[in-house]
Amino acid sequence: MGFSSDNLKGFVLALSSSAFIGASFIIKKKGLRRAADASGIRAGGGGHTYLLEPLWWVGMITMIVGEVANFVAYAFAPAVLITPLGALSIIVSAVLAHFILKEKLHDLGILGCIMCITGSIVIVIHAPEERPITSVMEIWNMATQTAFLLYVASVIVLVFVLVFHFAPLYGQSNVLIYTGICSLMGSLSVMSVKALGTSLKLTFEGSNQFVYPQTWFFTLVVLTCVITQMDYLNRALDTFNTAVVSPIYYVMFTTLTIVASVIMFKDWDGQGGESIISEICGFVIVISGTIILHVTKDLDRNPSRSVYARLSPSLSAHLCDENGESLKHVAGDGTSSDAIFRRQELY
Amino acid sequence: MGFSSDNLKGFVLALSSSAFIGASFIIKKKGLRRAADASGIRAGGGGHTYLLEPLWWVGMITMIVGEVANFVAYAFAPAVLITPLGALSIIVSAVLAHFILKEKLHDLGILGCIMCITGSIVIVIHAPEERPITSVMEIWNMATQTAFLLYVASVIVLVFVLVFHFAPLYGQSNVLIYTGICSLMGSLSVMSVKALGTSLKLTFEGSNQFVYPQTWFFTLVVLTCVITQMDYLNRALDTFNTAVVSPIYYVMFTTLTIVASVIMFKDWDGQGGESIISEICGFVIVISGTIILHVTKDLDRNPSRSVYARLSPSLSAHLCDENGESLKHVAGDGTSSDAIFRRQELY
Repeated sequence: MGFSSDNLKGFVLALSSSAFIGASFIIKKKGLRRAADASGIRAGGGGHTYLLEPLWWVGMITMIVGEVANFVAYAFAPAVLITPLGALSIIVSAVLAHFILKEKLHDLGILGCIMCITGSIVIVIHAPEERPITSVMEIWNMATQTAFLLYVASVIVLVFVLVFHFAPLYGQSNVLIYTGICSLMGSLSVMSVKALGTSLKLTFEGSNQFVYPQTWFFTLVVLTCVITQMDYLNRALDTFNTAVVSPIYYVMFTTLTIVASVIMFKDWDGQGGESIISEICGFVIVISGTIILHVTKDLDRNPSRSVYARLSPSLSAHLCDENGESLKHVAGDGTSSDAIFRRQELY
Repeated sequence: MGFSSDNLKGFVLALSSSAFIGASFIIKKKGLRRAADASGIRAGGGGHTYLLEPLWWVGMITMIVGEVANFVAYAFAPAVLITPLGALSIIVSAVLAHFILKEKLHDLGILGCIMCITGSIVIVIHAPEERPITSVMEIWNMATQTAFLLYVASVIVLVFVLVFHFAPLYGQSNVLIYTGICSLMGSLSVMSVKALGTSLKLTFEGSNQFVYPQTWFFTLVVLTCVITQMDYLNRALDTFNTAVVSPIYYVMFTTLTIVASVIMFKDWDGQGGESIISEICGFVIVISGTIILHVTKDLDRNPSRSVYARLSPSLSAHLCDENGESLKHVAGDGTSSDAIFRRQELY
């Protein structure tokens, strides 16, 4: 049973994080709508009146609170537990959109929600317990073991190849390039966030970790990884539709994070085969639920155009298929508030 | 870990049963097609030439082998394990239909298959172990404990009310009446099949159980329950579309069987809370997978008519929606081979 007191804290933090992040989308969207109604200029059209709308700022603060809760959660519980729970924010926003924004949730969408919740329960029940960490040096030793260094080296090589060779050639046509870079960096972000979060936790508990240069090194890694990750996430969202990017990104990011965490923190050592298999099953279920939620997302709103298109036989068709409006956003329009809004919708 | 040697036997038997039953649909359908091609008369139009088609008989025998394997599986492993695995036959037939009958499996259908398999893995991993039974008298004692007698009494009262009060009034308009009767009786069928199967197993092992009148009583119960169950299943399938009846029936039948088994065999005694929750999660996942498989089943074959109809916002819409051909089969056409074929498709 994975419910040590620390796992419980991490779990509650991850849940609140998802609730805050999920709710923030809705509050911000309501703020954007209210601003558009008041000024007659829609944010998607280049207006910035939403900056004067208090509701939009409430949403922004809600999101920051959620991100902080997520950050702190990593200090308490293993990434294998916290990362997949991120899918719950999708549910929170889908359910709130249904009730508050009156965006009808599809029947199959409800099934998607049920699956995400069920899968999360399976993951939570079988989550490994973490060994208590008393100093940043322990994390440093875990980060410098051969297996993890090999993982980091492979990630860096892959990211370089993707950024300098594939991105210029196929970045605008293949959704896997930008989301791949972003997911690979994301797995390192989470590991370093976990190191930094644990150091901060220890510091607050009275054992100052900032006397070690390793803590500063981890801070630097967090900044580098998070900035690269966000940059490429924005490029992906500027080039492709959110409904296409989100599930692919979720799957790759979560998978790589789990792989990284299992290598670095040896999460699966001392766990029985049945627990590991159950965790993987739970993860597969959450992924399936996320895919269903995203595929059925726009079904009712745009029936004439998107029903069959979204349910077309091959996934590759989705990758080129858009919501019916624009087939590609030019990367240069990244400064429009619409792009900002859409990128916030994801992370 | 639920993998005692008996659970393993039961699991392998249930898997083969699903493989045989799933394959039997395809073989019979191929037989029906070949017979129709040879004679020019389709079975759905009232032809019986398929009886001369060897392939149809191969399918029939395959199905009987599958049913026998299923029956024997109950003698080895708890119903909580065996019953939900029945959903795998739906996957086998969907996958075989895709490759052999060239009925294109939908993208979301593949996701449905993945979910059924994942859910089954979770169930199998957490299945309880059964106490070894040495005589039919032990089963008799379990069947006559107060809690289980109360369950049987409630089932009988409910079935009588449904059969004599609700069936004449709403049987032709509400899909829950016939499927309800059939599922309630089904839960008693499985319990008595398990009693009879165990008795037969013990008899084969050298300890003749047919000296006890209880064995004969269980045989009588099996016959009564199975015949009633099949009768009302046929009525449901004659009145409503298979795609509507199948998932509802699967959910109700499996749920009631698990309830009955937990009461009678005390499957969950001595199991940890996490195992029970995991089992329930696994069951919910298999149900979700089944629903997705059925909802998306006809999407590609009949895109113009059924795509939007099948994905309509409320489930109640499905209940009246048909495959595009006939909105209701009159109960009287139960003798047509089409009806026979369709009813075989389910159990």
